[in-house]
Amino acid sequence: MYFASDNGAPAHPAIMDAMLRANTGYTSGYGAEEGMQEVQQTIRDLFEAPSAAVYLVSTGTAANALALATMTKPWETIFCHRNAHIEEDECGAPEFYANGAKLTLVEGPDAMMTPQSLQAAIDYTGRLGVHNVQRGSASITNVTEVGTVYSLEQIQALTKIAHASGVKTHLDGARFANAMIALDCTPAELTWRSGIDAVSFGGTKNGCLGVEAVIFFDPDMAWEFELRRKRGGHLLSKHRMLSAQIQGYLADGLWIDLAKQANAAGQKLANGLAQISEVEFMPPAHANMIFAKWTRATHDKLAAQGSNYYFWPADPAPNGPADEKLSARLVCSWSTTDAEIDQFLGYFS
Amino acid sequence: MYFASDNGAPAHPAIMDAMLRANTGYTSGYGAEEGMQEVQQTIRDLFEAPSAAVYLVSTGTAANALALATMTKPWETIFCHRNAHIEEDECGAPEFYANGAKLTLVEGPDAMMTPQSLQAAIDYTGRLGVHNVQRGSASITNVTEVGTVYSLEQIQALTKIAHASGVKTHLDGARFANAMIALDCTPAELTWRSGIDAVSFGGTKNGCLGVEAVIFFDPDMAWEFELRRKRGGHLLSKHRMLSAQIQGYLADGLWIDLAKQANAAGQKLANGLAQISEVEFMPPAHANMIFAKWTRATHDKLAAQGSNYYFWPADPAPNGPADEKLSARLVCSWSTTDAEIDQFLGYFS
Amino acid sequence: MYFASDNGAPAHPAIMDAMLRANTGYTSGYGAEEGMQEVQQTIRDLFEAPSAAVYLVSTGTAANALALATMTKPWETIFCHRNAHIEEDECGAPEFYANGAKLTLVEGPDAMMTPQSLQAAIDYTGRLGVHNVQRGSASITNVTEVGTVYSLEQIQALTKIAHASGVKTHLDGARFANAMIALDCTPAELTWRSGIDAVSFGGTKNGCLGVEAVIFFDPDMAWEFELRRKRGGHLLSKHRMLSAQIQGYLADGLWIDLAKQANAAGQKLANGLAQISEVEFMPPAHANMIFAKWTRATHDKLAAQGSNYYFWPADPAPNGPADEKLSARLVCSWSTTDAEIDQFLGYFS
Amino acid sequence: MYFASDNGAPAHPAIMDAMLRANTGYTSGYGAEEGMQEVQQTIRDLFEAPSAAVYLVSTGTAANALALATMTKPWETIFCHRNAHIEEDECGAPEFYANGAKLTLVEGPDAMMTPQSLQAAIDYTGRLGVHNVQRGSASITNVTEVGTVYSLEQIQALTKIAHASGVKTHLDGARFANAMIALDCTPAELTWRSGIDAVSFGGTKNGCLGVEAVIFFDPDMAWEFELRRKRGGHLLSKHRMLSAQIQGYLADGLWIDLAKQANAAGQKLANGLAQISEVEFMPPAHANMIFAKWTRATHDKLAAQGSNYYFWPADPAPNGPADEKLSARLVCSWSTTDAEIDQFLGYFS
Repeated sequence: MYFASDNGAPAHPAIMDAMLRANTGYTSGYGAEEGMQEVQQTIRDLFEAPSAAVYLVSTGTAANALALATMTKPWETIFCHRNAHIEEDECGAPEFYANGAKLTLVEGPDAMMTPQSLQAAIDYTGRLGVHNVQRGSASITNVTEVGTVYSLEQIQALTKIAHASGVKTHLDGARFANAMIALDCTPAELTWRSGIDAVSFGGTKNGCLGVEAVIFFDPDMAWEFELRRKRGGHLLSKHRMLSAQIQGYLADGLWIDLAKQANAAGQKLANGLAQISEVEFMPPAHANMIFAKWTRATHDKLAAQGSNYYFWPADPAPNGPADEKLSARLVCSWSTTDAEIDQFLGYFS
Repeated sequence: MYFASDNGAPAHPAIMDAMLRANTGYTSGYGAEEGMQEVQQTIRDLFEAPSAAVYLVSTGTAANALALATMTKPWETIFCHRNAHIEEDECGAPEFYANGAKLTLVEGPDAMMTPQSLQAAIDYTGRLGVHNVQRGSASITNVTEVGTVYSLEQIQALTKIAHASGVKTHLDGARFANAMIALDCTPAELTWRSGIDAVSFGGTKNGCLGVEAVIFFDPDMAWEFELRRKRGGHLLSKHRMLSAQIQGYLADGLWIDLAKQANAAGQKLANGLAQISEVEFMPPAHANMIFAKWTRATHDKLAAQGSNYYFWPADPAPNGPADEKLSARLVCSWSTTDAEIDQFLGYFS
Repeated sequence: MYFASDNGAPAHPAIMDAMLRANTGYTSGYGAEEGMQEVQQTIRDLFEAPSAAVYLVSTGTAANALALATMTKPWETIFCHRNAHIEEDECGAPEFYANGAKLTLVEGPDAMMTPQSLQAAIDYTGRLGVHNVQRGSASITNVTEVGTVYSLEQIQALTKIAHASGVKTHLDGARFANAMIALDCTPAELTWRSGIDAVSFGGTKNGCLGVEAVIFFDPDMAWEFELRRKRGGHLLSKHRMLSAQIQGYLADGLWIDLAKQANAAGQKLANGLAQISEVEFMPPAHANMIFAKWTRATHDKLAAQGSNYYFWPADPAPNGPADEKLSARLVCSWSTTDAEIDQFLGYFS
Repeated sequence: MYFASDNGAPAHPAIMDAMLRANTGYTSGYGAEEGMQEVQQTIRDLFEAPSAAVYLVSTGTAANALALATMTKPWETIFCHRNAHIEEDECGAPEFYANGAKLTLVEGPDAMMTPQSLQAAIDYTGRLGVHNVQRGSASITNVTEVGTVYSLEQIQALTKIAHASGVKTHLDGARFANAMIALDCTPAELTWRSGIDAVSFGGTKNGCLGVEAVIFFDPDMAWEFELRRKRGGHLLSKHRMLSAQIQGYLADGLWIDLAKQANAAGQKLANGLAQISEVEFMPPAHANMIFAKWTRATHDKLAAQGSNYYFWPADPAPNGPADEKLSARLVCSWSTTDAEIDQFLGYFS
């Protein structure tokens, strides 16, 4: 009953096969291998973006921080929701890579920035000339950190506001595929057609072992990104370790299938929980993550039976009343089975 | 009718005299001049802190950023109010000097952090181990950016919470003297006796030309600060330019007299405004800054007669209804005269 | 005939097998997986260092830059040879991670610092107090960038000088195993018994796919390193991708066998070249890298027959006299075969 | 007998008078005061550069580091002589401000880069694409750190090489006026007419109290510089402290007169020393600094009589043979008198 994270799942066997296939004979490294050219072309085709610059790194934090540093000067700020991964879970990586750029936290329910809040934050930022930090970029996380999914209209409303003030737009797509499946849209619609300038296109959480692509729809940012990646220690010598994963991931629509499985598992789990009277949902579960509350007594019972998930936003104090409601985060992955979900739901009764 | 800023006033003649007196003959530089030894001793005596480390720089932003960088690792955060000068008016200097340390904004009315908000922010920060930025330091501004003054009890409540979690405490005392006069306390009471570890002790706004002291009550931070100051380009070669100002500032209680004058002017102005029916106060005016609202029509009238002050927190849109209430920030300095205040108040009628 | 780099070789099949074995079922991530505990224990045993802190990252640049940043304050300098990888091939990664720490280039033949040069550089650095950058750390590369190997005595002479001035010592062991085989010594002798405080223990060039260990013999540096790694985007979520490689690498002495193969290939190649009259050696070839010169005409002939290697230190101008001597860098890896070497040597005649 | 530094001299009385005159009444701060507009115009006229951007800061280290950071990306290098102030005396300020940009040390006698060495350094830097740091800027110090003065032809040869490779050029003119007098040229000839893109125009060492101008002949760099200055804590609120100094400095050719005095004193001192048989010159003394050797016994005698200067490049070991030759640095300033020089020379006999 493992719902702790989609990072806890293994890589899909087809990804491992692709790595094995790539691991033969001598090849150029540092992204000059043939496989990387194929990856670039495949991603350009998928995103209908023939001049996009495409790079691979091994973590989501690297993808986000390197992309944002390329889009944001040190004296500028990055607008994001206060629950964004870049704010809460990257130990200050964006600030480090961007040499002290600030993060301006934008409000909104369900971990989604509202247009009004973004507009207000942008307006406030620009008002004092050289004394203030300047407007830089805006980062939108989709799927959000609490499992909701921005609609295309919501993204468009935010990117329109950003661009009107010269603010560049970034999509943190650590769960890009899960969002795309939830929205039933194309990669292009989820990104540049909705006003996104650069995207962290996640692979790791959706069946890869450790690879994320960074895609710039404006290739002018490419060379600076390459230097930043090298300087950050994120340019792999045996780069086929990364390109092979993406080859396997994108071949034959595997990435779509895996996200469908994860989202379907998420929906099955959400539906099951909705039948349980003591369960109280928090934000709606749009994709593969569920946030919900139930009593401490039930939590204890579930743990005793081997369930594995995190409390949210942090562990509760160790002792407390049995009927206290405590919040949980449950994440399904491509490898979550119906049997696991049924077993877990059964523990409640 | 100049109420735009206490930075707009000239230096007091006695400060200039001290600079002239110091400007004779050859002397060692870089803080090794005799005058600096006198400054260090005077400040140690004033603060009843015989082992304090004392340094001078030429701006408040440098004082704050260098002190906070010495107290905060790059992967830590600085707790401060969202209206703090370090957040709003330093173009990211603390983040730059601290190599990307974060600022965590703490809530509270009248630009003052509440103990509850600080505790909550500290608790939230520490919860996720290596994934989060870590707890670093807390910076308290007194006089605050909206003219209120923390009481000693309020400061003690905050520093106690900070220290209980290993968080170091900094006082942004750009208007240190004005706060001290408002509280009728000693320098030691306003700082280390109330749990402050380091202070930016401002001179510029209270009659100097351009000098701020940084005082560490824990001398272990001294050498790192010296290296940071040099590396930041803030170690003056003809350092007597700074030490002479502080000599003049502290001699014969001049600094006290100047703050008394500025605060008295502030109170006279506040009292006068309180008699005017359309004036609406915002936070209470504890020292030499007043924040208040009146109609656009009255603003226009005051401007036409030569009044000089800032709207707050930013200029309003250029056109609007005549009866719209707009907020002003009015700052008195050591050089504000009764006549100026009377003349300004007269414009309202 | 591939001698371009040991990075061009594939991973050894046993490493891939270990990755496949580790890729089953759910597991904790971020280094909390069981495999990582085994890795830590194995490395502690191998290095006879029961309290060493052990971490994994995916590139040598990350290993070096993160380790050196942990050992060096921003206002300090890193002493290294002017041919060191950290100076020439990392696009300033150490300076970036260490927030602007300097590299002080130390002279010496064959890419090896001499004790005299290191002593002189340390003495010169410390002389002007706050005006100078301060002494920080020294980084020794073994195998060096030109294929020579420091003896244990040479390392000890350097670390003794460093420690006498409070300078911490780092070993860039991207080719650690090749150096160890060349010296016929133990891991402990090559490191802490010879005065090394921290080591980048390379796996990638010697048969792994992309993994380097960082080992601190002083565990006090551990927590800061963990924060720096996370903040640099180098903490992998599916961390078993790294720990499994090292498990495979160290199991049954595979890493020793692979380095022996690579070094033996290097020696065979060197011996063969020594028989060819026009070949002129540059530094002696101690391990798996050979640097030598021959005529442009011969280079052209070798290239036409499909030989693959780099000119050194950079590509020559495109046209030039046929009898001009041009330098080559030839690297053997675990996968270099006797047949390849024989075929290559045959091209000369 | 003070020859320790031109920083040890007081400010010229006319500079102090200008500060007193400026210290009256309210004024805008942060460079918006009227005096600054006058300064900008005066400098544009002096340099025959009508669109130059002109800024003031309080130290030479700030001027250099802020200018170079504006001209150099973090992943680029700054070419300079190994004796440059930015390398030896700024505790890594350029590296700090430029977020880890490297300094590449260029050789040449008498602290002057040769065209050949600069060309070789530039060529070597660019050769490995993303793996290397990139070419950024070149900084020329005139007067050099050992008292020599580059001729206009020498500067032109260097800037031509730099520009041919896309490298921007900076002049560290901490002793700008002394160099200009030595060369008998115009400000324009010493800078943009000789290919200099930006200059640190020193005031402090030549009779000011603490002010340096930064001049960009390409105004495109202006806004970034303003943000960097604010963020570095170098934008003074009572900015008239700086602009008034420059007003006094440039009025009626004072700056020219002061440099003539200092250089004349330097030449008188050099000529006097040349008559003393045991004195051995090192580089020729082109301006107001002399580097020369004489015996330890004579040093002791001079010190006993109250002479004040530095050994070079560092203090010698405390004991040594009486006839050992030890090097001294002697600096004359605008305030050095003939009597002081005669008295000092008299001590030798």
